[in-house]
Amino acid sequence: MCETTVDHVPAILSETASIVDSFLTQWLADQELPANLQEAVEYALLGGGKRLRPCLLIQCCLASGGETESALAPAGALELIHAFSLVHDDLPAMDDDELRRGLPTLHIHAGEAMAVLAGDVMMSLAFSLLLHNARSPQVFQSLSQELSQATTAMIAGQVYDTLGGFPDGLNDLEKLQLVHTHKTGALLRGACRMGAIAAGSDNVTIDGITRYGDAIGLMFQITDDLLDVTQSAEHIGKATGKDLEAGKLTYPGVLGIEASQKEIENLRITALESIEFLGPPANPLRDICEFLAVRTK
Amino acid sequence: MCETTVDHVPAILSETASIVDSFLTQWLADQELPANLQEAVEYALLGGGKRLRPCLLIQCCLASGGETESALAPAGALELIHAFSLVHDDLPAMDDDELRRGLPTLHIHAGEAMAVLAGDVMMSLAFSLLLHNARSPQVFQSLSQELSQATTAMIAGQVYDTLGGFPDGLNDLEKLQLVHTHKTGALLRGACRMGAIAAGSDNVTIDGITRYGDAIGLMFQITDDLLDVTQSAEHIGKATGKDLEAGKLTYPGVLGIEASQKEIENLRITALESIEFLGPPANPLRDICEFLAVRTK
Repeated sequence: MCETTVDHVPAILSETASIVDSFLTQWLADQELPANLQEAVEYALLGGGKRLRPCLLIQCCLASGGETESALAPAGALELIHAFSLVHDDLPAMDDDELRRGLPTLHIHAGEAMAVLAGDVMMSLAFSLLLHNARSPQVFQSLSQELSQATTAMIAGQVYDTLGGFPDGLNDLEKLQLVHTHKTGALLRGACRMGAIAAGSDNVTIDGITRYGDAIGLMFQITDDLLDVTQSAEHIGKATGKDLEAGKLTYPGVLGIEASQKEIENLRITALESIEFLGPPANPLRDICEFLAVRTK
Repeated sequence: MCETTVDHVPAILSETASIVDSFLTQWLADQELPANLQEAVEYALLGGGKRLRPCLLIQCCLASGGETESALAPAGALELIHAFSLVHDDLPAMDDDELRRGLPTLHIHAGEAMAVLAGDVMMSLAFSLLLHNARSPQVFQSLSQELSQATTAMIAGQVYDTLGGFPDGLNDLEKLQLVHTHKTGALLRGACRMGAIAAGSDNVTIDGITRYGDAIGLMFQITDDLLDVTQSAEHIGKATGKDLEAGKLTYPGVLGIEASQKEIENLRITALESIEFLGPPANPLRDICEFLAVRTK
């Protein structure tokens, strides 16, 4: 096992944010959109955020022997998909959120019609952006398949989470896993796989990266669930958070806090083992894994 | 000039609808969506409609020497995009329509959150469907480029039409052309081009088909504008329709009725000339052109 440190992960994330945001800003400026639509997309896309998905994509590309340059368009495309999903999730008919990253949500800033349309156009722009500097038609085809499947799965996860539609006969844990692997897991898995694909990797590499992506994807969400409990515990003085209050299935709710923490530890080990074969170039992926396992916000 | 007849166009359209709907039904059943999301997509996608875009796509493929089989996935993908746009356009924050093709719109039928999410997933499914039986990675790449560009342009057109955002210094006619070439023109042009691309056509063929698509796309919309005037004239007894009442730019509003009719005739001739070189296999495209020039609904 290689040595890891979480301390410089924030620096990796902010460096990625700077590279990806500058790439996206330049690319968007060439798209000839209506001025108000362009402004809305920039507002939703470039208004901050951790850039975890682009960072994973780029680092999985580098760990697989590729270069940042090959990963930029897929990373930007994936971030467009993530940003579109936030804009639509915030809509009054959905979560009805008025703030996102400390700023008014897009429908508050630019109106609901614009928020619907800007969300829509971010998805079509994502598939256009994927074509930018594609390594080859074969790689483009694989990337496009990943992106469309991940997007569909993410939307399906949002439906499971908020509107049901589960297959018959699932218990609570199975339902929860279905929500998590789709709603947040799909884009994180997709980010990792697209990075490996953009590097032109073989199937063994892609498979290892996929297991890593699945493990950290689930870990990310269990941590989210636990933070919800912890934060609420501090805030309202009892061990139930807003998810539980809203009747949502969560890992601590279904398995308990201790078993959830144990599950995070298992997933951390699985993630690290899955990329052991990649050697030192995968060190940043190890750091990100450790960072996600201990994050507090 | 080859002989044309509009009489059998409704039969071509209904035959296309039957083939494409059956293809889409089967493909959708394999997508493992949440049951409620699947039902919503089927409701919005398979609830009728002329299927003009799939029909143009298939007929442009056939006229370019391709086979229906190669055109089915692109045709289904384009219809998914068209259907998604109708679902989102009908939302309360947009046109707030409660009826579509004589049935409750999706947000009335299944709720607003589901209408947002089903519209979203129809777009990602469109890009997945495009991969189904793709002739080659090169053809897939070209089809994907067309689909994403046409979708972006269509959404931009909806923004121009309802929220403005025009470039500075345009007069009314220029604004109107920008709305029409984007809002309805882009998908009709895209349908024609994707048909030629799916057939593996050379650039000369694609260019001719593109000019045809541009001409009938604009003709379609001018006819729509004229029908709005005519229908309202019969209905409320004066020569202004709901578009004019809503302050929308229309061809009869900007150019007058007579000049609009003359423009339709010019576009009809342009469309027919553009595909003259394709000979008898393009007869159905000629029929569709004539049909669109004289349609009354």
